[in-house]
Amino acid sequence: MNTTGHGAVVALAGGVGGARLVDGLDRALPPGALQVVANTGDDFQHWGLHISPDLDTLMYTLAGLSPEDRGWGIEGDTFHALGEARRRGLDDWFQLGDRDLVTHLARTAALARGESLTDVTRRLCRGLDVDRVILPMSDTPRPTTIVTPDGAELAFQQWLVRERAAPTVKALRYGGAGKASPHVLAALNTADLIVICPSNPYVSIDPILTLEGVRAALEETPVVAVSPILGGRAVKGPLAAMIPQLSGRAASAKAVAEHYENLLDAYFVHPGDGFQAPFPVIETNIVLQAREDRVVFARKLLSLAGSLR
Amino acid sequence: MNTTGHGAVVALAGGVGGARLVDGLDRALPPGALQVVANTGDDFQHWGLHISPDLDTLMYTLAGLSPEDRGWGIEGDTFHALGEARRRGLDDWFQLGDRDLVTHLARTAALARGESLTDVTRRLCRGLDVDRVILPMSDTPRPTTIVTPDGAELAFQQWLVRERAAPTVKALRYGGAGKASPHVLAALNTADLIVICPSNPYVSIDPILTLEGVRAALEETPVVAVSPILGGRAVKGPLAAMIPQLSGRAASAKAVAEHYENLLDAYFVHPGDGFQAPFPVIETNIVLQAREDRVVFARKLLSLAGSLR
Repeated sequence: MNTTGHGAVVALAGGVGGARLVDGLDRALPPGALQVVANTGDDFQHWGLHISPDLDTLMYTLAGLSPEDRGWGIEGDTFHALGEARRRGLDDWFQLGDRDLVTHLARTAALARGESLTDVTRRLCRGLDVDRVILPMSDTPRPTTIVTPDGAELAFQQWLVRERAAPTVKALRYGGAGKASPHVLAALNTADLIVICPSNPYVSIDPILTLEGVRAALEETPVVAVSPILGGRAVKGPLAAMIPQLSGRAASAKAVAEHYENLLDAYFVHPGDGFQAPFPVIETNIVLQAREDRVVFARKLLSLAGSLR
Repeated sequence: MNTTGHGAVVALAGGVGGARLVDGLDRALPPGALQVVANTGDDFQHWGLHISPDLDTLMYTLAGLSPEDRGWGIEGDTFHALGEARRRGLDDWFQLGDRDLVTHLARTAALARGESLTDVTRRLCRGLDVDRVILPMSDTPRPTTIVTPDGAELAFQQWLVRERAAPTVKALRYGGAGKASPHVLAALNTADLIVICPSNPYVSIDPILTLEGVRAALEETPVVAVSPILGGRAVKGPLAAMIPQLSGRAASAKAVAEHYENLLDAYFVHPGDGFQAPFPVIETNIVLQAREDRVVFARKLLSLAGSLR
C-alpha cells in the first residue's frame, strides 16, 4: 500500500462504461497507482487493420479525445477515407475516422514487425501523452464469438455493428489460447484493490476473467464492482437484452452481481437498484457521463474500498 | 489491327509525365485499344501499407481525379490522418491523403489475402470507374535502389521524397526476380504499336525494359517515344540531374534517345530539341499539362505511328 492509502489499483474494463470509471479513477489516484486491464475480445481485422475497440476507447478517453456523445473514435474527427471507401463500393460498416485510422495503421504495422500488443499499446498511449498503464488482457488473440439459436457463429463486431446486435445470443465463445499477458498477471497478483468496471459482464469482463490465472488472483484480493445496469437499462450497448437471453432473468444490477458469483466484496448500484447480499451493496449515483461526476464517484469507491481492508 | 487503323497500343509509363500521355492516348483511341504497362519499381511500404506511386498516378489521372498542380494524390483530398501522425511523432515524410489512403488500404489487404497486384489494380480501377487496362509491370517486387558515390544504397522513395533527390546517383539497381507479369508479356507480344511515354528512362522505363522478355518484344514492334526532356529540363522530377550523373552527358532529348539505343522507330521532341538520327525525330509541342493538349498530341503520335507500318 502506498502513502496515499489506496495501494495498487487494477481496473478490469471494456469500452465506454469502463473508460468513464477508469477516467475517474485515473484522476482520483496518484500517478502510478492505477493499471487498467482491457478487454481485447472485440478486436478484429477490418480493411486489413488490427482494430482494438476497447483499447482505443480507453486510450482516447484518458487522452481527453473521446466525444461526449458517442462511445468510439476521436472528437471532431473527419470521415473522408470512409466516404471514399463507400463511393468505391468497399466495406463501410465500421466507422473509422481519418485521425483514428492512424492508431490502427500504427498498431497493425507494429504487430506485423513482431511487437507485442502490450508494447504497441504503451507506445500509442505515449504518442497521445497518456502516461497511464493500459494493459491488453492478452498478447494473443481471444476473439469473442456470438452463437445464435440457429447455431450461426458471428464475430463480435459483426454481430454488434453490422447486425446491430439484433440476432438473439444463445451462447458466447471466447477463442484463442486463453493466456493473460504476463503484465496482466503481475498487475493482478500485486493489486491491493481490483475494480470491475461497469462494463458488459459477458463480452467485456468474462473474456478477462476466463483467462488462465485471473479468477484466482481476484479471489485473493478485495474486488469492488460497479453495476453496468441502472434501473434495468444498460449504461451502453446490448447488455440489457443479453441478460435475459443468456441467464433467463430480467436485466438488473442484481443479476450482474450474481453472474460474478462469489467474487465481489462490494458493489455499487444506482439508487433504487439495491438488494440483500453477503457484501455491501451501495446505492449512489453511478451515471458517469460527465467528467466531473466520474472523479466524485471514483473517490467514493476508493474510500469504501479502503474500509474493506 | 482494328477497324480504326490503330491496332493494339501498349504504353510504357511511370508517373506524372507518363500519365498525361496515357490520358491523351486513352481519349484518342477506341475503348479496348490501349493497355498501359506501369512501372512498379517505386513501390514501397509505408505505415505498413503497400504504396504503388506510379499505378496510383495513372489510375487517378485516368479517373480524372489528379490535381493539375502536383503529380500525386487526389484533387481536393484532405490530410487529417497525416496531421495526426505528425502530432504523434510518427513517420510523416510521405504525403498520404485521407481519400488516397483507401487505395493503399484496399491494395494492402488484397495482397495480404494473396490477390495479385494485377488483379487488385484492375479492381481498384473499376472502383474508380476506370475501365482502361493498367498493368503493373510485374506481380513480384522489383524495387529500384539508388547507389550513391559513397556506396550507400537508398530505396527509391526515400531518396526521392525523404532526401529530396539530393544525393548524387552513381548507379541504379533493379531488385527482385525480374519477371514481367504474363499479362504484360501477352500485351507486348500482341501490340501493333508500343509507346515509350515521357517518363524517366532510368527509374520509370528501364525497370520495365530490363524485365525478362520485354526488350525482345520491343525489338519486334514499332516503338515511338516521347522525350521527357524539353530544352534541357525534365517534364517532372529529378531526371535532368540524373542524366549527367549517370551518362556523363548534358541532359537533352537526344541523350535520352541514345540511352534507348536501337529501340526507337520514331521520337517526338520539343521544338528546338531535334537532332539527326536513323529514325524520324519530330519537333512539336510535347507539353501535356492541359488535358486538351494531351489528346491533340496523342492523335499526332498515332497518325505518325500509322505511317511507320
